[in-house]
Amino acid sequence: MTTANVEVESLKGEVDRLRLEVQTLQAKQGHEQVTLGHYLLTRLTQLGVKHMFGVPGDFNLGFLDLVEDHPDIDWIGNCNELNAAYAADGYARIKPNALGVVTTTFGVGELSATNGIAGAFSEMVPVLHIAGVPSTTQQKKRPLLHHTLGDGRYGAYAEVAKQITVHTAWLDNVETAPRMIDEAIIQCMTKARPVYLTLPTDFVTAEVSSERLNIPLQRVVSVNDPPTENFVVDQIEKLVREAEGDVVIIVDACVFRYDVRDEVKEFLKKTGFPVYAAPMGKTAIDEDYERYGGIYVGSITDPEIKENVEKAKLIISVGGVQSDFNSGMFTYGFPTSRHVELHSTHTHIQYAAYPGVGFKHLLPKLTERLQSYYDLGSKIPVIPYKAKIPAEETDVITQRYFWPRIGSFFKPNDVIVTETGTANFGILDVPLPPKTLLVSQIFWGSIGWSVGATLGVALAARDLGLGRVVLFVGDGSMQLTVQEISPMIRLGLKPIIFLLNNNGYVIERTIHGKHRKYNDIADWKWTQLLDTLGDRETETKSFKVTNQAELESLLQDAAFLDSDCTTLVEVIMDRLDAPRLLADGVAINKRAARAATGKVDDD
Amino acid sequence: MTTANVEVESLKGEVDRLRLEVQTLQAKQGHEQVTLGHYLLTRLTQLGVKHMFGVPGDFNLGFLDLVEDHPDIDWIGNCNELNAAYAADGYARIKPNALGVVTTTFGVGELSATNGIAGAFSEMVPVLHIAGVPSTTQQKKRPLLHHTLGDGRYGAYAEVAKQITVHTAWLDNVETAPRMIDEAIIQCMTKARPVYLTLPTDFVTAEVSSERLNIPLQRVVSVNDPPTENFVVDQIEKLVREAEGDVVIIVDACVFRYDVRDEVKEFLKKTGFPVYAAPMGKTAIDEDYERYGGIYVGSITDPEIKENVEKAKLIISVGGVQSDFNSGMFTYGFPTSRHVELHSTHTHIQYAAYPGVGFKHLLPKLTERLQSYYDLGSKIPVIPYKAKIPAEETDVITQRYFWPRIGSFFKPNDVIVTETGTANFGILDVPLPPKTLLVSQIFWGSIGWSVGATLGVALAARDLGLGRVVLFVGDGSMQLTVQEISPMIRLGLKPIIFLLNNNGYVIERTIHGKHRKYNDIADWKWTQLLDTLGDRETETKSFKVTNQAELESLLQDAAFLDSDCTTLVEVIMDRLDAPRLLADGVAINKRAARAATGKVDDD
Repeated sequence: MTTANVEVESLKGEVDRLRLEVQTLQAKQGHEQVTLGHYLLTRLTQLGVKHMFGVPGDFNLGFLDLVEDHPDIDWIGNCNELNAAYAADGYARIKPNALGVVTTTFGVGELSATNGIAGAFSEMVPVLHIAGVPSTTQQKKRPLLHHTLGDGRYGAYAEVAKQITVHTAWLDNVETAPRMIDEAIIQCMTKARPVYLTLPTDFVTAEVSSERLNIPLQRVVSVNDPPTENFVVDQIEKLVREAEGDVVIIVDACVFRYDVRDEVKEFLKKTGFPVYAAPMGKTAIDEDYERYGGIYVGSITDPEIKENVEKAKLIISVGGVQSDFNSGMFTYGFPTSRHVELHSTHTHIQYAAYPGVGFKHLLPKLTERLQSYYDLGSKIPVIPYKAKIPAEETDVITQRYFWPRIGSFFKPNDVIVTETGTANFGILDVPLPPKTLLVSQIFWGSIGWSVGATLGVALAARDLGLGRVVLFVGDGSMQLTVQEISPMIRLGLKPIIFLLNNNGYVIERTIHGKHRKYNDIADWKWTQLLDTLGDRETETKSFKVTNQAELESLLQDAAFLDSDCTTLVEVIMDRLDAPRLLADGVAINKRAARAATGKVDDD
Repeated sequence: MTTANVEVESLKGEVDRLRLEVQTLQAKQGHEQVTLGHYLLTRLTQLGVKHMFGVPGDFNLGFLDLVEDHPDIDWIGNCNELNAAYAADGYARIKPNALGVVTTTFGVGELSATNGIAGAFSEMVPVLHIAGVPSTTQQKKRPLLHHTLGDGRYGAYAEVAKQITVHTAWLDNVETAPRMIDEAIIQCMTKARPVYLTLPTDFVTAEVSSERLNIPLQRVVSVNDPPTENFVVDQIEKLVREAEGDVVIIVDACVFRYDVRDEVKEFLKKTGFPVYAAPMGKTAIDEDYERYGGIYVGSITDPEIKENVEKAKLIISVGGVQSDFNSGMFTYGFPTSRHVELHSTHTHIQYAAYPGVGFKHLLPKLTERLQSYYDLGSKIPVIPYKAKIPAEETDVITQRYFWPRIGSFFKPNDVIVTETGTANFGILDVPLPPKTLLVSQIFWGSIGWSVGATLGVALAARDLGLGRVVLFVGDGSMQLTVQEISPMIRLGLKPIIFLLNNNGYVIERTIHGKHRKYNDIADWKWTQLLDTLGDRETETKSFKVTNQAELESLLQDAAFLDSDCTTLVEVIMDRLDAPRLLADGVAINKRAARAATGKVDDD
């Protein structure tokens, strides 16, 4: 977007918010009434929400009637609430400017979702958690209902939610409920973090004015304070000038999360600067872009890429999340004096912080100011980012072989989901085709997440007409959330699941306990899993590859390539084999621990 | 136990506690050192803990080394943390005076267990939750580690734990850590509620004195204040006298939870009073006991039983939990003026409360005082509690037929686990053989609990040499936690799982949404489930019965009856059929809602 466009959007948002404020104050009478349940669903559909996730329970059944009867929303019944939260998270990551919505029941349901909601907080994903709770009468009398703690603390679960959300809305007054719902949704979208909303059973059909619904909600991105913003642009230009245009850009997670992919692309196109991605920023920029050089992850970066990034006189990172695994264990190889960081709500220039200067409005201004550096910027060499398939003497499917090889399987528009085990690291060495999306949870790192998330990703991808959904997950992680394959099959979704069978928790074995039994798991019959968990009438396909020749053959096999149903490929790998980036990252941590404690972790 | 024995036990406990206090104050030097990890494990083994549950994660791997190497503790690797918490809960319910222990990793792991821990709180089960957390150095510097929320709040998960535990111990000082561990364990056992304990990675191998370990820990049951206790005994005797010995006893959940089964049995034997059980108290008294009359559950009680309970001039309930489903939706049919309630920490006599007068010490004194009423008490008629198999014209396996019929399958010493769907209600009409235990989660009511719990129950039952473990679970509930069957098979456990296949959430359909799609689920191929999730070499057996004739035949089938491995029986039932007690309970709620709101829930 151009500067003017972005400002216009912001101003429109401000106008809408003020109109809603006026609505609240006027408390008009005499217009159309709708039930509060419908009010909430209308707000969600206005934002493009077409699927809601969750599990029925007796405190949400009345609301689910409305959901089931709604013409524009499909209820997705998950197998459990943690998986439902993961699915809502996956859905939100794919749908631009929408929300993921998970509905649970009081106590037992909502608490089961805790880890999924916390993950959405950590990874900055807008998930709205609607908890069906007892009626307002019951909340006052606090009887010994099932799903309570037995001591009358009906508010305890909301206290849990406060720790892992940016906003909690406890509805207890029908008059103020529409305003509280609006505020909850705006907070969720704007901050890109989860929000908790309670819906008492008696409020579902309570009537409220529909007037506010005429003004749709949207993410609110405040305009930066003009003098501060100008100062920041000046400062950055000064550094670019001093660097004689020798600048590289690193894109990271928040480019996705706070919706600045267009602004970043425009900035790159106009300035010509080379661009790299942190692991969590992979596919924020199409990986076939001519000025794109691959993945930067601190000291464990591929040596050629590392040199090209770190020798730049100025590094501008956009939307950075310098968490351990996303930064090569905190080993960025350039000083703060050569670093500018653009974030959603603030900017860092060398050692100075500029709170309140967010990148959504700043980026178009930087583009305008720095486009004069195009001639310099576009001449900085970038080594094309290509997969390197090793010549190996073995026929075993090694991690080193598998990832580059699987790269050629991908097509434009595919959505690729990787699990927090070896897959998150393996995929980093694979250049992906243009318009693909990589979805992973590198920061929060909850094993099992990818299976639930894939359900949400697949539904969002279908809504948007994207390509195939391809999941890479280890056998250990799959066991945590395996039942969520069932709704995929039932709903006719067609993900391709690569089940990396290495007999246990390889990420843990790499970290510690290489030969420990606690890292072993049961050896399931993976190729009969889909058939067991599928609806009886729905077709599924399963394959197994035990060596390179079989994998090569599968990747040519029409039965596999034309598969039009949920598909699983069991890939047999060695129980101690780990991708390079995982092994290198762990080695850094072990060296650091040895330096700090003098103890050697040789297990 | 006699009065004298109970007092002696209490005094011994008091002496031990004082010795530990002296230990703390003396802070002796020069004796044997052990690692803090060993200290904790020694404390657990002293209490009879032989199995610990959980999932490995990089913040607990060091501790798991010690667990795996410990000669007296087996590490049970669960498929996920919610299931692990359920397993620890099931284990604690069976092992007398021990704990259930679940070990998770920082953030992702511990938060996944939230609902399981909250359930243990609600249902009063002593579960110790050990969370492996970052090193104390990392806790001070608070880097952007994986599994954190991204804003440096390393303490957020402990805040979550505070809402659902009776005690949280955040270890941050090696010196005080042994005392804090002891306090955590004592609180867990004494209050029979979950406790949260953090174990920083650097503390696992930190050395501490082993001196305190010479004094084992135990549940602390304070002696009642003698004058108050005497007054209470006098008051109760006065009411018994006025009632001319026309007294009935109702046993309930806390008879199990606070370990007074022996005291209650002695009381019943010496007084001859008839005894009934609330649903959560079922099997606290052997159901073949000649003075036992069956289940009392308010207005939905079998009419003959109801009359016999409610016409008594005095009702003494022991360890009562008058929650909705456990009390027939709050419909106890006698006035407070005829009711005495004995609880673990207090006593109610008519309208008067006596805080601090707990039943452990009170019961032996009541036995002494009231044994003179034996001649009156033992003459009050009790109708023998027998199963009534209906003569039905159908061959369908109805709920009305199934439960009484399955009753004759049980044997003494069996442990029966029922899930929070129809099974919890169906089992109430089935008299169980002596020395059986019924395990259920009627108050918290989290669907899926029974599958995880069965793993823990089966291990505890094996430790104690109990009989078969038999689980009844619906298809809807099973889908939440299905993977936990895998460790059962892997560990060579032999539960018999009756999978009640009625195509969805029948308990929800009974409450609301009879024909709603949101109460439907995928139709799995249940009879191939065990084979899919089992270790490749381990045998399992699966059966399917679709009508009464097939069930009758199965119950005579040697292949089934002699099954010596994990066994599943799929029982086909109608999608709208619910046990009488469930249907009646729900009907009460609907009538109450109609009376309060004027609205009819006819769905």
